[in-house]
This record gives sequence, C-alpha cells and structure tokens, in this order.
Amino acid sequence: MKSAKQWILTDRTENIQKEKIELNARQLGAPKCRKLSVTKTTLRGGLSEGVEVVEINNGALSISVIPTRGMGIWKGSYRGIFLGWRSPVEGPVHPAFVHQNERGGLGWLYGFDECIVRCGLESNGAPGRDVVPNNMGEPTEMELTLHGRIANIPASRVTVEASGGAKPIVSVSGIVEETMLFGPRFRLSARISTAPGANWFRIEDEVSNLRAVESEMELLYHCNFGGPVLEEGARLVLPAVETAPRSAYRAEDVETWAVYRGPTPGFVEQCFWHVLRGDANGGTMALLRNAAGDLGVCIRFNLSELPCFTQWKNTAAEEDGYVTGLEPGTNYPNTRAFERKQGRVPRLAPGSSRRASLTVEVLDSARLVKAAEDEIEKLRGGTAHTLHRAPDPRFSA
Amino acid sequence: MKSAKQWILTDRTENIQKEKIELNARQLGAPKCRKLSVTKTTLRGGLSEGVEVVEINNGALSISVIPTRGMGIWKGSYRGIFLGWRSPVEGPVHPAFVHQNERGGLGWLYGFDECIVRCGLESNGAPGRDVVPNNMGEPTEMELTLHGRIANIPASRVTVEASGGAKPIVSVSGIVEETMLFGPRFRLSARISTAPGANWFRIEDEVSNLRAVESEMELLYHCNFGGPVLEEGARLVLPAVETAPRSAYRAEDVETWAVYRGPTPGFVEQCFWHVLRGDANGGTMALLRNAAGDLGVCIRFNLSELPCFTQWKNTAAEEDGYVTGLEPGTNYPNTRAFERKQGRVPRLAPGSSRRASLTVEVLDSARLVKAAEDEIEKLRGGTAHTLHRAPDPRFSA
Amino acid sequence: MKSAKQWILTDRTENIQKEKIELNARQLGAPKCRKLSVTKTTLRGGLSEGVEVVEINNGALSISVIPTRGMGIWKGSYRGIFLGWRSPVEGPVHPAFVHQNERGGLGWLYGFDECIVRCGLESNGAPGRDVVPNNMGEPTEMELTLHGRIANIPASRVTVEASGGAKPIVSVSGIVEETMLFGPRFRLSARISTAPGANWFRIEDEVSNLRAVESEMELLYHCNFGGPVLEEGARLVLPAVETAPRSAYRAEDVETWAVYRGPTPGFVEQCFWHVLRGDANGGTMALLRNAAGDLGVCIRFNLSELPCFTQWKNTAAEEDGYVTGLEPGTNYPNTRAFERKQGRVPRLAPGSSRRASLTVEVLDSARLVKAAEDEIEKLRGGTAHTLHRAPDPRFSA
Repeated sequence: MKSAKQWILTDRTENIQKEKIELNARQLGAPKCRKLSVTKTTLRGGLSEGVEVVEINNGALSISVIPTRGMGIWKGSYRGIFLGWRSPVEGPVHPAFVHQNERGGLGWLYGFDECIVRCGLESNGAPGRDVVPNNMGEPTEMELTLHGRIANIPASRVTVEASGGAKPIVSVSGIVEETMLFGPRFRLSARISTAPGANWFRIEDEVSNLRAVESEMELLYHCNFGGPVLEEGARLVLPAVETAPRSAYRAEDVETWAVYRGPTPGFVEQCFWHVLRGDANGGTMALLRNAAGDLGVCIRFNLSELPCFTQWKNTAAEEDGYVTGLEPGTNYPNTRAFERKQGRVPRLAPGSSRRASLTVEVLDSARLVKAAEDEIEKLRGGTAHTLHRAPDPRFSA
Repeated sequence: MKSAKQWILTDRTENIQKEKIELNARQLGAPKCRKLSVTKTTLRGGLSEGVEVVEINNGALSISVIPTRGMGIWKGSYRGIFLGWRSPVEGPVHPAFVHQNERGGLGWLYGFDECIVRCGLESNGAPGRDVVPNNMGEPTEMELTLHGRIANIPASRVTVEASGGAKPIVSVSGIVEETMLFGPRFRLSARISTAPGANWFRIEDEVSNLRAVESEMELLYHCNFGGPVLEEGARLVLPAVETAPRSAYRAEDVETWAVYRGPTPGFVEQCFWHVLRGDANGGTMALLRNAAGDLGVCIRFNLSELPCFTQWKNTAAEEDGYVTGLEPGTNYPNTRAFERKQGRVPRLAPGSSRRASLTVEVLDSARLVKAAEDEIEKLRGGTAHTLHRAPDPRFSA
Repeated sequence: MKSAKQWILTDRTENIQKEKIELNARQLGAPKCRKLSVTKTTLRGGLSEGVEVVEINNGALSISVIPTRGMGIWKGSYRGIFLGWRSPVEGPVHPAFVHQNERGGLGWLYGFDECIVRCGLESNGAPGRDVVPNNMGEPTEMELTLHGRIANIPASRVTVEASGGAKPIVSVSGIVEETMLFGPRFRLSARISTAPGANWFRIEDEVSNLRAVESEMELLYHCNFGGPVLEEGARLVLPAVETAPRSAYRAEDVETWAVYRGPTPGFVEQCFWHVLRGDANGGTMALLRNAAGDLGVCIRFNLSELPCFTQWKNTAAEEDGYVTGLEPGTNYPNTRAFERKQGRVPRLAPGSSRRASLTVEVLDSARLVKAAEDEIEKLRGGTAHTLHRAPDPRFSA
C-alpha cells in the first residue's frame, strides 16, 4: 500500500517521541467518515507510567495498539462489543516492570493483559532449558523464558498512515528491534490497519533476520478473548483435521474441546494442539462464537505462514482471567528444544524475512456467524478429524 | 474517616500523574496551623529519576511517602530529630533499577533505604525455594526473592485527604496492585496519616485478595532506625514473653539482645524472634530508646493483625548502614516454606481482606520515654520471659 | 584542574535533571575556537527513551558521553573518522531494559554498543559462580553476571567544566554509585576531557570504597573499534612481553594474533591475554592501526593502575558487530573466582580510592602512526616476547 499521508509518532534515530497526537477524519483524508480518528496518548500512573497507546477508531471498530509493548493490541471494541479480556493484570504494564526470568521464567505473566500479543521472536512457549552454541562456538545451556522478549520491547519507530481515497485504509506501523550481541538480531515491522466502518482489523508483520548467519525464529499470535463472545456454551469452530490435548485430561474434557465452560473458580487451564486445513493457498480461519451463535470473532491467517494452531482454555473465574487464547503460530508453544526436535522451528537465512498476517473480524449477527461456520466446513472439505484422547508425542513434550 | 477534601495526585485509570503539588494549611482546612503542608515532588537524576515523593509536614513532624515504591515511608523528622537510617543505598531507587532475582534473590537490597518498607505480599523474608501448584495444577518449584515485590510496585492511585475541622487529620492514600496471571492478585490500600503538631503518624493498610481462589499472603513492616535514637547503649523495650536468636550467637550476644552496640565496622547482623504480649484487644507496642532514655521511637500495633515481631540488629559502621529493624509481621521473615510449616502464613479467602495498622510515635523527653516503658511493663503484666539461648526450631529454619 | 566555570546537568540530591543544554565556545570561555561546544540531549523512542547523551565537540573531535549508562562513551568522530563500532544493538539502551541475569548472566549484551564501556566495579568478566561471605558471615554462592553493574547505573551527578584560558580543557564529570546493603558500596567519579582542536580525549576515574570494610574491586575499560580503523590487515601493536590465547585456537590464529581479518560471517570470537611493558613510571600504550598504516587509534594508560591487557577479536560480519576490543583492566575478564586465585583482584581498604586514567588519541597520518609504533618499540626495549601456543593456566580458567 502506498501511503498518501504519513505521521511520525516515534523515531528513535530522529529523537522523536510525541506524547500525544489526535488525527481526525479530515486529516486522515476521509471527511465523510466523521468518526474516523487516530489518537495517541501516553499513560500515566502506576505500572502504566510512560506506556504509549495508539487508538484507531474507524467509526464502528476501535483498537488500541501499544508501541511500548512491542506493537501488541491491548483491546478493542466493535459497536459496543468488547474485544479482549479482563486480565488480573491491570495494564498495560511498562516493560521496565516486567522481569521475565523471575518465577522460573514466568515473569512475562506480570505484564500479560493484551487482546493480541506476539510471542517470540527468538523463542516462544514454555520456559525451559535449551542448548545453543555460544559466542565461543561451544554448546551452552540457556534458560529461555516464557514467550520470549518481543512483547516487552518498545517500538523504535511508530507511524500512522492513511492511504487516501474516500474509504482510506488507516494503519499504525511500528518497528521493534529484538537484538543483542551474540544473539538474535531481528527486526519486526508490524502494521495494524482497518478501514472506515469495517468490522475487521488486520495485522501484517515482517520479521527480518538482520544477522549474517542463519537464525532460528519463533512467532505466535496469542489472541485472547473473554466475554461477551466467550461464555458458557461458546464454541471454537476450526477446520481441524487433528487435535490433541496438551496433558492428560478427563475423557469428557477432551471430547468437549470445542465447547467452553462459564467462569469456573479454580479451573485449571487446558490446551489443545490443532492441525488445520486450509484452501489451495493455505488460507484458513478460526471462529470463536457465543452460545447463541449470534456473536463471533473470526481470525483469518495462512498456514504457509502460521502452520500451527493452539487453543488455550482458561475458563477460570472472571477475577482470575476468564479467557480463551486462539494462537496461530510458526510452532506450538512448547519449549523451543522440543519444537526443534519436531522440525517446527523456522530458520531464517541471513538477511531474509518471513511474513505473517492475521485478520480479525467481529461477527455481530447470526447470519455472519453462520456464514463463517459454513466457510470453515467448506475448508475442512469433509476430511476426517482425528481426536487424540491422550497427549501425542508429536505435540506434547 | 470521611474526607472533607480530597486531591488526586495519581490515577492510572484516569491517566493522571501530577509531577508536583503543594498544599498549604489553608487549603488543607487548618489556617491556624501555619506550617501544615503536603508537597509532592518527582525526583530527578540517577537511580531516583521519576520517583514520586509525597511529604506531609504537620508543623512538628514530617514524613516522606514514596508512591513509586509501594507507598513506603522514606524518612521523616520530628522537631529536628531524624527518623530513618543512612543506608549505603542513596535512594529512593526507582523500581526499574531493582532486579530482585539477581544475587541469589537478594536484589531487593539494591533499593532498600526506607524508614518503613512493607515486605510481601505474596511472600516476604529470606529468598528460597517453595513448591506451589502452577497454572496446570502441578506442584512446581519456584524461587521466591527476598521480601517480595510490593515495595517495588508504583501506586496506581494516590490521593491526599484532609478531614476538616480545626485540627484536621491529613493523610496520603495509595492503591498498590501486586498482580499477575496464575499468581497473586492483591490490592493494597494504604493510608498514612497525621494531625497538626502531632508526634505520631499512622499507617492503616488493607490487603484484599481479588482472586476467586484462596491465596496465601505475608505482610511485614520493616521499620528501620539509625541515629540519633539508635546509639551505643540504646535499648529495645518489648512486652516479650519469648525470645529466640535466629542463629547460633555467642551467649553474651543473646543475653544482651535488648541492648545495642555503637557503630561497629565489620559487625555481622543478628536477628531475634520475639513473641509479644498485648492487651485484651491485642494492642501492643515496641519501644526503641536511646542510652540516656530521653529519646525514643514507639511503634504501636495489634497482635491480631501482626502476631510476629522480629528484631534486626545491624550495628555495622555508619558507612555500612548502622540500623536496627523493628518488624511487626503476619509472620517471621523466614522462607515462606518454613513459615507455612509453622502455620504462620495467613490465607485470604476469595474476595476477602486483611487489615493491619501501625502507629509510630516520637518520644522526645525522658518523661514520654518513661511512660512508654511503664506501659510496656504493664502489657507484660509480670509474665515470665523465656529467652532461648540457641535457635529454636519453631522460629529458625 | 581548577574549573573556571561549571554547569550542573544532573544532581540527584538537588533534584536537577536538565533535559537539554547547549554550551557554545563563548560560554565555554574560548570564543576563538568557534566550533567548541557541549550539548546535552535526552533521547526519545524505543529502548533509548530517557537516555541522556552529552556530546563534547572540540572542533575536530567529538565524543558522546552517556550519563545514563554509567558515563560510558557511546561513540565519537575525529575529522570525519568514526570512533566506535556498529553493534547489532541499536542503542544506547536504557538500563531499565537490560536484565543482566537473563541468558545465564549474559543479559549485559542487550545494551552493549558503546565505544568505551567500563566493566565492574564489584566484578567484571565472564559470568560465573563465586563464593563470598554473606551478611550473616557465612560463605554463600552467588552468580555474578557478565561485566558487572556499573554500565547500567545512571550517574547521579553530571557537570560540565571549562578550565578557562585560550585553549580551555573542557570536561564532563559524573558520579556513579554502585551500592547496595550487604554488598559493594562504590562511588565512581569519572571525568572525560578534551581540548579545542585536540586529537585526543582523556578518561580520569576514581573509584572509592565507601564502606568501612575492605572490598574487592575490578575495573576494565572495554574500548571497542570497528571500521575504518579495523579492517582486513589492520594490526594491534603492543609493547607485549607475553601473550596467551584464551582458548585452544589453531596455530595460525595464535601466530597472527596481532593481525585482523576483514568481516567474516560466522567468525567465532578470539581473545588474547597480554602482559605489557611500560616506562619507568608504568606508562604504556596500545595501538590499533589500519592496513595501510595511515590511520590509528592509540590508547595510553598506566600499568600501575591497569596492569592487565586483553584483546578481543570479533571480526564477524558487519551485521553481527565487526569489532575489536582493547581492554586495559585491573584484571583479565575471567570469572572473579579465577582472577582472585591468580591474585589479580584488587582490594580497596575502607574509605580508600583507586584511580585509573586512559587517553585515546586518533592518529590520522602515516607519520603519526609510525611515531606511535616507534614509541611502542621503545617501550618494549628489545625485550623478548613469549607467545604461548596454548591457553596458559595463569591466564585462562
């Protein structure tokens, strides 16, 4: 997309960091969509001190992007429907307060409250020991922490673009650098866009390996939804051809993997690994729908970019974070050591890039939900679904 | 207390963070106490960059509260008498620079220079391994760090209140949230108050378990004093019925637990565990008095809230932090695993709260010191005092 | 040097932190050197948010000092010649984002992009376990992290001085405090100076042990240069009397220790330990020169202050940080435990100080490079050079 207009919010090399910005429809080139706006604020107080938030409001849908937290999407709403979840963490939390290697590598959870958070890029998934060559070429043990660093790195460049035309595509773009000496050197170029009045927003990412040596990379989109879509009887609809539980669950829990409980105090999280089917181009989708089937969130992505899909069922009490995670990824969120053995850790050649994109649609009628279900059924194309009753060694460590 | 007036200094949800505020006696509703004031400043430079300090000056006593460090009390003074200690750490240190799990979990000491600092809320005391159920319900080892997280979490809401009337109660209140997913979710509501011309200030805290599941909680007030109260021959006066050394000390050191050395280069810290007696309502007190008995600091608290009392003798050289800690707590500052075995880790039911309060009085005459000693003698009520010569397994791991 | 003029940029105790300052030649007392200036900026955006940079430009040479990162020298230039290196880390990185004990204690590498960075003060060198007495006097294991804390501590006082006179010495001074309770309490007083039109800058440091007990201290200057000085065929010229490889390298790599490769993708770093000879006062020097011998950087220091010299050859690809480190230190950057055994960890008596200084000269002609080579030859004075073919137990753990 060629941008007709661009605004710079942050540029580390130019020493720019705008505390506030407000762009209205006229400025964005769409005077007829009165409610179109892009607003940047810098949060103040407590653990949010200094966190930048950029909100795009297309008149129907609004989403809040957090440059300070690696261009994650904090939350959104569509015609009054809340998108996201109510985490016990009242964030967004500034990365300076997130100590990832505390609590046995689970410190990432100090800052986790986003609707969509990227996990990676060096690694994602469960914390655990891995052996990699160090700067002296010797195999060295290293403790990788939960879900990697990218969500706790502030973007070094943030811009807003409007494509021009009567219905401009409006986007927020950011560059996030995950680098160190003797370690990964990745550049994430993230773009989050929507159009006036649309029921969707799109994430288009490119991860570049800036090193002169090949590098492993993992990327997973942790897309998290609580109510109103998630509720007792809500269902996950997938073009799945294979599904396995992460751990040994009760038979009825495995069989009802697609169905959600209501908020359940003391509920212990469950995860399911899925293999999805896509169309000829790899296009696929996942649908989370409410019990009545008149509200849903649909995520579209491509299996050539994100071949693995993980479902996280955390139907604990509201106070403890009632949520489900829909997680398209380059891998399943096991330890990197396990994923490597399964051949699921992509390697990026020197100077090369890998793209991933994701479109989230809000479906606010039975008709739209049904259409998505039909589309998923068509994607599956009558293929049998293998449901493993017990953890499968290809998926679970 | 109903507040006649309130000023908001910080509110994360309203995006308020006032860099500066100055309230005078007139504004606080007490025009006749000319010197009454509340002042907020934001510190600049070095490790203190961005640290908020709220000073209440009642005309005779002033105390500095640090919202950025969990509403701790940095230091104070009463009619020229310094309250606090001269830590080797020249703080207050912004939490972004405190890495608690460095140095085997002792990183909390990078930021420790307060007169009163809360230790907790998930745990306090010595760093150490504990086994707790993880998010998958499986027992998991976790390394707990020294004295927990609460002192390194910035308050998300800070207000000043004045109760009205000729001698208004003036207070600073703050909300500090210690939360994460799959871990504790506590809200500390702290209030620090004093009255015009008073020789006291009061801490009134409420800790709420916001989870839908029962949670362990530990809270300890690390109240630290150096000179002028602490000096060679200073004494700790307690209504103690039982006292035990933490480690094996020389017999004379155990016998003189109540008496302090002067600054002693190379002195190795000593701790004593005390069981105190209170009045019918649980009210009790501890008095630190100087050698001459004409200066003292008295801490009043309630054994139903804070049943354990620890004395920390760190009479090292001035340069190394000549100080004693008087530490009323829900528990003794051992590892949580040990305290749990001894039945001293409170459990908070879902949604429930626990209160604790503490009043610190400065006694600047022999008369006042004598009155406090008499009161303590009365509290003890002639009960025998058991002094253990060696560490006791009920108190020391 | 007596300062004729002084400007305070930062003072924690006075609550001063100037976001910006610009001093011109007239203000600095040298109206005839039109291009003399000192400029302070505060960086904005990404990982650099809030980092202070003070640039001294003497008309020919400019250097950027980073108070926020322990008064390190980020980069410089002399008549268009770049001084420093192109680290994969695009910094300078604010210490709040550097988690030193991640990745097995290598987290320091998240922020490493300086031309000159101090390593220390409690320890420097490789991360590793050490046993030291804890606050209870008991030997305790502690994991020390790579290169210590000093580079990630913001200066608490920063001033600019100009000595007066037609060719004033212009300097930036800073105080950096590395302190904690029950641990080190060091004060680094750093001064970086130059003169109008000079081809040199000087670092004059004093490290004081503020404790009342003796303390171990380690200090190393990690001086890092990439192109244009470093290139294929560049050489390190040293008055070395003994040289040993850190690890087992190929014979040809050991023999060509003094010669540099061009950027080599996948190159694994090599280190050499050197014992240098100095003049009667201990004065010595190291020269890095380009292949043609018409460009060089010379570092002068004193063996009584910095007896050990380490050469770090990291001729990886440009993208991975093509660089060599010239590292005068109180010790070699092995683990502190190893250096202690070798008697190379200085001990500072209570209240005492240790000084170190370093002068960096840029030599931009064959004549100047030749003069430096001759001076080094003279320093060596015909002494034989022992080149160890294999790691030597006095130098390598």
